[in-house]
Amino acid sequence: MKKIINNPNDVVSDMVSGMIQAFPEELEQIDGTMVIKRKELSSNKVGLVSGGGSGHEPAHAGYVGKGMLDAAVAGEVFTSPTPDQILEAIKAVDTGHGVLLIVKNYTGDVMNFDMASELAESEGIKVEQVIVNDDVAVEDSDFTTGRRGIAGTVFVHKIAGAMAETGATLNEVKEVAEKTINQVRSMGMALTPCTVPAAGKPSFQLEENEMEIGIGIHGEAGIERKPIASAEDIANELTQKVFDDLGLQSGDEVAVMINGLGATPEMELFILQKHVNHLLENKRLSVFRTYVGEFMTSLEMTGCSVTLLKLDDQLKSLLEAASEATAFRV
Amino acid sequence: MKKIINNPNDVVSDMVSGMIQAFPEELEQIDGTMVIKRKELSSNKVGLVSGGGSGHEPAHAGYVGKGMLDAAVAGEVFTSPTPDQILEAIKAVDTGHGVLLIVKNYTGDVMNFDMASELAESEGIKVEQVIVNDDVAVEDSDFTTGRRGIAGTVFVHKIAGAMAETGATLNEVKEVAEKTINQVRSMGMALTPCTVPAAGKPSFQLEENEMEIGIGIHGEAGIERKPIASAEDIANELTQKVFDDLGLQSGDEVAVMINGLGATPEMELFILQKHVNHLLENKRLSVFRTYVGEFMTSLEMTGCSVTLLKLDDQLKSLLEAASEATAFRV
Repeated sequence: MKKIINNPNDVVSDMVSGMIQAFPEELEQIDGTMVIKRKELSSNKVGLVSGGGSGHEPAHAGYVGKGMLDAAVAGEVFTSPTPDQILEAIKAVDTGHGVLLIVKNYTGDVMNFDMASELAESEGIKVEQVIVNDDVAVEDSDFTTGRRGIAGTVFVHKIAGAMAETGATLNEVKEVAEKTINQVRSMGMALTPCTVPAAGKPSFQLEENEMEIGIGIHGEAGIERKPIASAEDIANELTQKVFDDLGLQSGDEVAVMINGLGATPEMELFILQKHVNHLLENKRLSVFRTYVGEFMTSLEMTGCSVTLLKLDDQLKSLLEAASEATAFRV
Repeated sequence: MKKIINNPNDVVSDMVSGMIQAFPEELEQIDGTMVIKRKELSSNKVGLVSGGGSGHEPAHAGYVGKGMLDAAVAGEVFTSPTPDQILEAIKAVDTGHGVLLIVKNYTGDVMNFDMASELAESEGIKVEQVIVNDDVAVEDSDFTTGRRGIAGTVFVHKIAGAMAETGATLNEVKEVAEKTINQVRSMGMALTPCTVPAAGKPSFQLEENEMEIGIGIHGEAGIERKPIASAEDIANELTQKVFDDLGLQSGDEVAVMINGLGATPEMELFILQKHVNHLLENKRLSVFRTYVGEFMTSLEMTGCSVTLLKLDDQLKSLLEAASEATAFRV
């Protein structure tokens, strides 16, 4: 295992310390937890909390900031945070207007956020949840009933966050988050596995000439292993599947996210982007905005995902609203 | 070689196409070249051009935008761009106020930017150059007389770019760029090599338990190969060397950049940041701003660099000025 770490069991607490020290004016840690919250909350707004296993950075702490999340809960690597920590996050960000939880669809996350939600409600806090399940690759998986939540989650953070900043009610914020979830789809692939620090060895193997289509962000099995294809073929395969699943039509307007899984050179993401864009042009889609970079990673996995979000005027204006999140400045 | 590419000989042109398509409102390509320029130049300002071999993304095209560079010239992977392409960039961004070239100290880049500069001057354009040599690891290297230019270059882009936006003269912009160069130092290390697409195999080898301290961003030899140390020891070794070389004193104010070389999980960069910050606190330095991410990469190399920039009021205000560069929004 080649990693820049100290004790493998301390990676999350070491990382959270580093994040707080990097952005001392923007972020703070809730004592005794792995919760990162905005140092100064906007008053009079719905609180937004997300989180999940660590190893997907900048998700989710990088999306904490004015205009996006109010707090993110970091679980152990690839492991859901515990309900008590999620509860602390909910309590810390509630200003009396209720809290929306944005949860990626993994069994552990769904269960723990749900439990935290009940605990918070028993303390008198209004809590709603949305479950992101944008990954079109597989219907169920090792860690999921139903589709997995991956990079599309970042669009949900952005849009719900912008809506909350307008002073919308909890139900209105939930509604736009659900609309975003209904209109966002993703699919990924990988060339190499990743290694959970505490495990010390890769979670799976791929042959030197092999890639896996439809893989999950924890290395969960995808659809197919096959010889490495060209960037053009990879872009076309991922984008076509997402396009079909969304039921897009000529003339529709979309936002595009080309996401690296951790170790993919930016050069390769832009090469993919060229072909994704070409396919969308051929289908006469209108691309409103493109995001290329690392948004939802899987430690040092080499690979990518393609996300399309179908837009309307409301979503466009929320997507373009200001964000001060450290990993998503608009 | 596991890469998401098409023909290995087309990686740069494919990437540049993807970049332009990702940011069609911000960027354009000069026909027949690998030059990326701002679509709309600010008038009445000094032009800023940088560039170098590709494979260091987001350097340099990601730093093109209002408040930073006006154009970036992309050479082949790890290969200097040719003088004729640099000349096209200079001509495209000159609005009559002259052009400053920001060049990383590699023999090929220095030679080709110098030649382009002479060609431009023979066409009546005033051109000045600055050479960035922030890497304290080695005095000379395979590709350099004197120290190499690495991630500190991004601070030079930012500060010179902000100065140019104020309407400063060519000499004034050059002066602040040189001041930045005098006050910025970096040092890096790697755990794994990278593969130039056209070569198809790694440029060097490191054993499974081995790291290399002081390595360059093309895999040039560093100072020492040794067993992988803890994040704390790595942070201390790199930061102490940079600290000493800059001659920093208790009470000095600095900007910090923790840079990933391409395949290092963000988690590990934040773990490093924790220890860099701790060392600087112990030395009673004041940290004005911290940047953690991938700013100057080496394809899919795993590793990092630490950069410190000694600040004064002028540099602080220029560092904080607005930037619309796609990879460095302020």
